Amino acid sequence: MPDDAAALAAFGYELGVLKRIRRAGWWHAGVRDPESVAEHSMRVAQLAAVIAAEEGADPARAALLALWHDSQETRTGDLPHTVSGYLTKPEPRRITADQTEQLPQRSRELIRSAVDEYEAQHSVEALCAKDADKLEMLLQAVEYRDIGVHRVEGWIDSARKSLKTQTGQRIAEAAVNLSPLAWRDR
Amino acid sequence: MPDDAAALAAFGYELGVLKRIRRAGWWHAGVRDPESVAEHSMRVAQLAAVIAAEEGADPARAALLALWHDSQETRTGDLPHTVSGYLTKPEPRRITADQTEQLPQRSRELIRSAVDEYEAQHSVEALCAKDADKLEMLLQAVEYRDIGVHRVEGWIDSARKSLKTQTGQRIAEAAVNLSPLAWRDR
Amino acid sequence: MPDDAAALAAFGYELGVLKRIRRAGWWHAGVRDPESVAEHSMRVAQLAAVIAAEEGADPARAALLALWHDSQETRTGDLPHTVSGYLTKPEPRRITADQTEQLPQRSRELIRSAVDEYEAQHSVEALCAKDADKLEMLLQAVEYRDIGVHRVEGWIDSARKSLKTQTGQRIAEAAVNLSPLAWRDR
Amino acid sequence: MPDDAAALAAFGYELGVLKRIRRAGWWHAGVRDPESVAEHSMRVAQLAAVIAAEEGADPARAALLALWHDSQETRTGDLPHTVSGYLTKPEPRRITADQTEQLPQRSRELIRSAVDEYEAQHSVEALCAKDADKLEMLLQAVEYRDIGVHRVEGWIDSARKSLKTQTGQRIAEAAVNLSPLAWRDR
Amino acid sequence: MPDDAAALAAFGYELGVLKRIRRAGWWHAGVRDPESVAEHSMRVAQLAAVIAAEEGADPARAALLALWHDSQETRTGDLPHTVSGYLTKPEPRRITADQTEQLPQRSRELIRSAVDEYEAQHSVEALCAKDADKLEMLLQAVEYRDIGVHRVEGWIDSARKSLKTQTGQRIAEAAVNLSPLAWRDR
Amino acid sequence: MPDDAAALAAFGYELGVLKRIRRAGWWHAGVRDPESVAEHSMRVAQLAAVIAAEEGADPARAALLALWHDSQETRTGDLPHTVSGYLTKPEPRRITADQTEQLPQRSRELIRSAVDEYEAQHSVEALCAKDADKLEMLLQAVEYRDIGVHRVEGWIDSARKSLKTQTGQRIAEAAVNLSPLAWRDR
Repeated sequence: MPDDAAALAAFGYELGVLKRIRRAGWWHAGVRDPESVAEHSMRVAQLAAVIAAEEGADPARAALLALWHDSQETRTGDLPHTVSGYLTKPEPRRITADQTEQLPQRSRELIRSAVDEYEAQHSVEALCAKDADKLEMLLQAVEYRDIGVHRVEGWIDSARKSLKTQTGQRIAEAAVNLSPLAWRDR
Repeated sequence: MPDDAAALAAFGYELGVLKRIRRAGWWHAGVRDPESVAEHSMRVAQLAAVIAAEEGADPARAALLALWHDSQETRTGDLPHTVSGYLTKPEPRRITADQTEQLPQRSRELIRSAVDEYEAQHSVEALCAKDADKLEMLLQAVEYRDIGVHRVEGWIDSARKSLKTQTGQRIAEAAVNLSPLAWRDR
Repeated sequence: MPDDAAALAAFGYELGVLKRIRRAGWWHAGVRDPESVAEHSMRVAQLAAVIAAEEGADPARAALLALWHDSQETRTGDLPHTVSGYLTKPEPRRITADQTEQLPQRSRELIRSAVDEYEAQHSVEALCAKDADKLEMLLQAVEYRDIGVHRVEGWIDSARKSLKTQTGQRIAEAAVNLSPLAWRDR
Repeated sequence: MPDDAAALAAFGYELGVLKRIRRAGWWHAGVRDPESVAEHSMRVAQLAAVIAAEEGADPARAALLALWHDSQETRTGDLPHTVSGYLTKPEPRRITADQTEQLPQRSRELIRSAVDEYEAQHSVEALCAKDADKLEMLLQAVEYRDIGVHRVEGWIDSARKSLKTQTGQRIAEAAVNLSPLAWRDR
Repeated sequence: MPDDAAALAAFGYELGVLKRIRRAGWWHAGVRDPESVAEHSMRVAQLAAVIAAEEGADPARAALLALWHDSQETRTGDLPHTVSGYLTKPEPRRITADQTEQLPQRSRELIRSAVDEYEAQHSVEALCAKDADKLEMLLQAVEYRDIGVHRVEGWIDSARKSLKTQTGQRIAEAAVNLSPLAWRDR
Repeated sequence: MPDDAAALAAFGYELGVLKRIRRAGWWHAGVRDPESVAEHSMRVAQLAAVIAAEEGADPARAALLALWHDSQETRTGDLPHTVSGYLTKPEPRRITADQTEQLPQRSRELIRSAVDEYEAQHSVEALCAKDADKLEMLLQAVEYRDIGVHRVEGWIDSARKSLKTQTGQRIAEAAVNLSPLAWRDR
């Protein structure tokens, strides 16, 4: 698979862009040096596994969906909410199709089916992955509040409203009343 | 599950530390502002899924193992290679046991079994996850070389030597001869 | 003008977002910490004045057009080139209309007419401002090359091809053969 | 104009230094990673245009003065207030004369006359540009306060006291009572 | 001394690692971009001299001890407190022995004796240097609190409790009630 | 000593500014995020001790002189070389006098005598400290070259020319031919 290997390597480099792209919404909140999309997505995948475990769903599948849910941003960047109304949202499945076009079949199918399932939001695992996306933002908002960033209520509120699983909602309730350093005292 | 929710939230905050901890080895190579452990781990998990797919193993399981493989570093930091000889390597399973002690049972089992399987390195998925860890470092080394960092050969060589799967080895061969911008021209 | 003052102050804060948003294209080239849109736009405005002076056009007008040419990015972020094909380019005049809607008339007209003139690309000053935009990118590409970033040829070439004024072209030719530190030796 | 082009290119590189120099005063306030001189100057020029528009002055001229008002800092750095008493303030016109000495006549005259007019502070446009300089600092101080920086009153007060135009004063009054996120709710 | 010179130069490069390694404990407090070990150690050495002067001890000796007290971290990184229990603390004298093995005798003895004296904590100068280490952390904690970081009490309290000299304790008491900007008003 | 303690604490905070101020000269070389004055001064002090040891001088005294040699920059910032001709160099002894005016006598005398001795450049220890200042810049220049920064020859050459001690010169010769990673292979 000589060409396959090159295609996989090139794809690996494309994924590297996620390590540099910043989460754009926080720039509006005044944060000068916000976390990257990869940093966000990492905790999303971890939380997706945990939420799925508690919900009795498949943790590995939920994590897998989370791993690819923002991978299109290598090509679009991280679009802030204020963009809505000015452009039509890009279609993730189309971007994923282009990104994976030259990959060997198994990898291509794997990623496309993960993006399909996440975007469809029909399976429990897709719901868990999406809740993890919102919950991660909420945890980060509390963490920013904890180092002085004042205007995070909008982020916390929108996260809470959009949570669909019981586990996601319960963790969110607990998180807003907890110190990000709580784990050190346990 | 009131206490369970607090335990899960506190655990979520602990995982947030991975978004701030830097990959210490690159400081030796002269990089002033290297990527975080979370940024590294994110691409490791993505690559683990891809390698497993190509190797005919379970991609979701391989990704799940990768997601937790550095999660102990919230408590130990990222130890550089030069530390060896000066201290006994911390035992990941013990740290994971402490980190997950107050979690509800399903999450606790999930994470502990993932760390167990990764550390044992017996399953194909564990091999794929470990290869992904090395391959991610290799890709990052080439990316640093591409922006001027001269002394990355040590990182590239050690990564190549340690790869165990055919897919990992093939991607590595392709990657060292490829521009990190190759994906834009495809 | 109590409400006018609040509208102007709020607009001033919106412009502050440009100080935090990074120029997204450089993330593809491997730059981890690229300059902000405001940093880019500042030198664009300065170069626009200089190019216009040499071209016998109105330097102050050219600079003014440059000052607002990226101001819509507070709402859209800085979209990388790879986004094309996945979304319809946002219409700058519509965003400017929204941004300036509550401003007092003089400011509103000033900014809208500047964006109109820049987008139309009919006046010499608009051509100078656009050339300044490309030239700034070229200077920055050479500056990045000078600190080790290897893959900047694409940026330099695309800038050179798009330059329309003689002055812009001549500065570009000189710049690619010059050290960014040349000013210290003069 | 072969030499002229090289002189203009070298001057363009000198202006690039402003993209890297940080605003030194904020280091005293505890900010570890403050904005660059270029980021500051960009909003100054935008605000200068707006203030001039409201004051019935020439917005393009006011913006042009603002564009060059800190350009000498490529050679001196950004001197903090605490330096006063320890050295004689550098004379901006002399530095500008040196910076522009080899530029072709039109560019040279353009920049020198802009610096002359700004330093003289006789024209309305010069007053508007200077007020924009102070107002930008005030907006930034509020923005820093909004992300947790406690000691910004000194910066806010000194900005307010030094404002000369009615428009500048009115925007300042409005700004201190406004959220930097107010523009998102309008 | 051809080899001696190379050994000294290589040692100088090893010390350069301290300019890049971050103080890991602050990552737990939520600080994304904490100061380096070198930045910390610099103020420790300055404070050690001052404390020793006030205590009637040898300021130059106390400063010298402080200069090397964290120099082993080029090889171990900065270990956070949460690591305790998971590994045996590395023995500083052993690392120093390795770091200085190839240095010419005078430099080797100088550094080894400084580390010995600091680790033994028998001399007044060693006590002053250790108090300076704690006091520097306390000053930094107050500085972080002053820019919005909420959870610094743990750092302040642990610093205060561990101070042994009267001077160290008195400065600490004064520092917690003082603005980090107080020096500007004096 | 209640007031004395407050004066010492305020002085400690003033020294904290050195942790944030960047070494301005590197901005000219294209480095966007150069090291702080404290990071530089730390290695200067360490090198001063080593050079003095090899030269048969007093290492602790040489280090002490180095510790305070840039401490005036809390008030002046780090002035780049290009400033010369535009302002009279500030007199370090006058700034130190002001900085230490309210300190208790022992600390005041300690710091003033250290600055006096360094500025006079008569003692061997003062020569060693100054050589350490230049040598540190040379090591850093090689380190920047090693991560891609092209234009560092000016810094290396000026450092080499100004070195006065045999030890300083020998280390410099060795350093320019050595990899900054050499210590890892020894």
